[in-house]
Amino acid sequence: MAQDKKQVEQITDMEVDFAQWYTDVCRKADLIDYTSVKGMFILRPYGYAIWENIQAEMDRRFKETGHVNVSMPLLIPESLLQKEKDHVEGFAPECAWVTHGGSEKLDERLCVRPTSETLFCEHWSHIVHSWRDLPLLYNQWCSVLRWEKTTRPFLRHREFLWQEGHTLHATAEEAIAETEQMHRIYADICENVLAMPVVMGMKTDKEKFAGAERTYTIECMMHDKKALQNGTSHYFGNGFPTAFDITFTDKENKQCHPYETSWGFTTRTIGGVIMTHGDNRGLVLPPRVAPIQVVVIPVAQHKQGVLEANRAVMDRLKSAGFRVKLDDSDQSAGWKFAEYEMKGVPLRLELGPKDMEKNQCVLVRRDSGEKSFVSLDNIEQTVAQMLDAIHDGLYAKAKKNLEDNTYACATLEEVKEKMAAQGGFAKTMWCGDEACEVRMKEEAGVSSRCIPFEQEHLGDTCAICGKPAKHMVYWGVAY
Amino acid sequence: MAQDKKQVEQITDMEVDFAQWYTDVCRKADLIDYTSVKGMFILRPYGYAIWENIQAEMDRRFKETGHVNVSMPLLIPESLLQKEKDHVEGFAPECAWVTHGGSEKLDERLCVRPTSETLFCEHWSHIVHSWRDLPLLYNQWCSVLRWEKTTRPFLRHREFLWQEGHTLHATAEEAIAETEQMHRIYADICENVLAMPVVMGMKTDKEKFAGAERTYTIECMMHDKKALQNGTSHYFGNGFPTAFDITFTDKENKQCHPYETSWGFTTRTIGGVIMTHGDNRGLVLPPRVAPIQVVVIPVAQHKQGVLEANRAVMDRLKSAGFRVKLDDSDQSAGWKFAEYEMKGVPLRLELGPKDMEKNQCVLVRRDSGEKSFVSLDNIEQTVAQMLDAIHDGLYAKAKKNLEDNTYACATLEEVKEKMAAQGGFAKTMWCGDEACEVRMKEEAGVSSRCIPFEQEHLGDTCAICGKPAKHMVYWGVAY
Repeated sequence: MAQDKKQVEQITDMEVDFAQWYTDVCRKADLIDYTSVKGMFILRPYGYAIWENIQAEMDRRFKETGHVNVSMPLLIPESLLQKEKDHVEGFAPECAWVTHGGSEKLDERLCVRPTSETLFCEHWSHIVHSWRDLPLLYNQWCSVLRWEKTTRPFLRHREFLWQEGHTLHATAEEAIAETEQMHRIYADICENVLAMPVVMGMKTDKEKFAGAERTYTIECMMHDKKALQNGTSHYFGNGFPTAFDITFTDKENKQCHPYETSWGFTTRTIGGVIMTHGDNRGLVLPPRVAPIQVVVIPVAQHKQGVLEANRAVMDRLKSAGFRVKLDDSDQSAGWKFAEYEMKGVPLRLELGPKDMEKNQCVLVRRDSGEKSFVSLDNIEQTVAQMLDAIHDGLYAKAKKNLEDNTYACATLEEVKEKMAAQGGFAKTMWCGDEACEVRMKEEAGVSSRCIPFEQEHLGDTCAICGKPAKHMVYWGVAY
Repeated sequence: MAQDKKQVEQITDMEVDFAQWYTDVCRKADLIDYTSVKGMFILRPYGYAIWENIQAEMDRRFKETGHVNVSMPLLIPESLLQKEKDHVEGFAPECAWVTHGGSEKLDERLCVRPTSETLFCEHWSHIVHSWRDLPLLYNQWCSVLRWEKTTRPFLRHREFLWQEGHTLHATAEEAIAETEQMHRIYADICENVLAMPVVMGMKTDKEKFAGAERTYTIECMMHDKKALQNGTSHYFGNGFPTAFDITFTDKENKQCHPYETSWGFTTRTIGGVIMTHGDNRGLVLPPRVAPIQVVVIPVAQHKQGVLEANRAVMDRLKSAGFRVKLDDSDQSAGWKFAEYEMKGVPLRLELGPKDMEKNQCVLVRRDSGEKSFVSLDNIEQTVAQMLDAIHDGLYAKAKKNLEDNTYACATLEEVKEKMAAQGGFAKTMWCGDEACEVRMKEEAGVSSRCIPFEQEHLGDTCAICGKPAKHMVYWGVAY
């Protein structure tokens, strides 16, 4: 167990230094590597495999709801980016610019896409003519660049992977329904795949996406009680289509501008998974995206028949559709236990000569450490049930964290006190005035996270200015 | 049928103007759109879906052979690109350069990856220490940029999609075996998925990849008898690992440099599919990558029960795992026939009231136009058999084109004559001297395609200079 101890000691406790604990997990669980360009990270195989599993879950849901994938160019001419005023103001300050191709200076500089609304709109202006061409329900999986000053693994990259959905509709109602549908799909992914409970709502005007009329957001709470915005969906009205001169002939033969949406979900969610479920022994992965759901570790593997028995159980679990790894390397059992705990593998299956005699194996849950001796007869069903139980357990624990650290406040003073004492999400009434948001930020250090769909009537007046209240708002410190 | 005729007439016959026919197919089959940046193309949903199907077939084979996916950064610092001399000489002239991030000029300019050997090597220098860390079998799916002067849809983009595999091994033998394995996987994809017969062999030193010791290539012949290089695999020796200071301790505790490979397969293969199987009515897709394998078209769909019967057959085929589309739009049957012919859908299924009475449907093959009346009882098996027959038919036809247009030549003069008269691939003996390759290019207008594995003894002397021959070589005009 010496090696085991050694590795575990390399992680900082999250209670000691949460930021260092987080970085340690990203490194020690082999999720990420740094490069010589600041803020450009490598997603190592184990980190990328988590993304591949998230992708598969999302892509299936997108296709089931009629979306198709496309590939748009990486580079956007500066003049194209400038076509929509609010949009360029939001993104130009963080664009990376290509100025030379080969040895020649370009006539016009090209930005590496920070997001692709302008490219989709230019394309649509070529291909949309009639109501028959609508709706267009497009998505692309790609990376985008944003030249951030401060960067952190997963949470803030200069280049990050994401999907960006872009859709075009004949009516505003249809476009709004699409925005809300994708918002629900993101919530479904968070809750039922990543075991992350969510607060669903709308961004305030101050916090919405550059150029959007409405931004819907999913807000999650991390271990340190900070907020992580996890997937946003935007309704644009017909502002972009008007700027890009996209028109179609409707059924009454009238020329109209269509309505647009976009929605994105990024690798930052992996940072969210780490900070929602991880512990002081490392990563804890929700079973539905874990690259390895069950690690099989032979006990006394040099003894006759042990390796064969372990291989047999691995084969059975693989055939049943689980992601399984057998570690039959010559490392010690202690080393292996620590290694797969660090990597957050949901279930460890141990099988040695004594177990073989009893036709059983040992299952150890990563989340609770709970150890069970179970029969090999129904191992497939037992593993399936236990993985579901782990998912439910992770979700319940995170839900408790969210509920225990969300509280109603009547005044700005109360928000300041509670935030300083406890952190988390404060709920208050709000007049709808941006000046109050600014004041809340300056005095209590929190930004509006969202206007939740589940509104509560906490009072009649704005907690900041005392004027009549329009909405209940969630406030918090955000990543 | 008026609409039908109209659409078909929009394509140039390939015998009249092959290049125009090709571009027409790319546009009219909705594969591609142009953008305002020269050489940066949009892969539209139908074009991208072909790539997704190719990806799925490849990714499964990569994973079955132990490879894992990663995500490396988009940008490479100039100093990193310069670490391997031959490599930078090969790629620097066609790099796109990022010089500004936001409003600031960068200290060092960054090139948008043209390929990622340098990034993988930098990463490996961080993580490789012991023989236990090897082999590393990595792959990534991404896009790369090469600032080409002349561009064409799929065949030559400034940005194209590809997979790039990069692997690291303890021994040269292992690395060579890996290179050859991936070469065989590419051939398998071409022949058994894309129905494209291949010539497998090695590039000459002149034609190999910048920095590689050996390049293995797959060469295919198009309708116009030109060659398309379709997937290359490179063995690097330990040149890069030495330049990047990657070392590992072997089992005897000695410090060594590991051996490296890379291999890539791109969206240009879609251009190859078009030029191998297409005809004057449009695209013809090999069934195993066709986004729609069967289009179901109701006949007299306004009549009672017709739409329901068509939906029922679509549901049955979908359940059996086929990619099926029912077109129940209000377009005429003639319009629909032309539309899905243009899009190269392998099988059309027609079902109307008369068929319903007889419990049958009509199947029409896109490749041959052959029409059959088949029972609905075993429609799943019938469709499966017919799709396999289409695959085999496409392969046989392309194989005949390759064989009919490949011929042995004894002299440079003979190559010139035959090339002018017939085109295709000339086989000659070759001394191994680069000067003879240059002369062949200058006088006969052909480049060496490969030194095929299946060597034939056509004579004892080089067809160009008359000196003793070392190899038989394939020559041709390449895309």
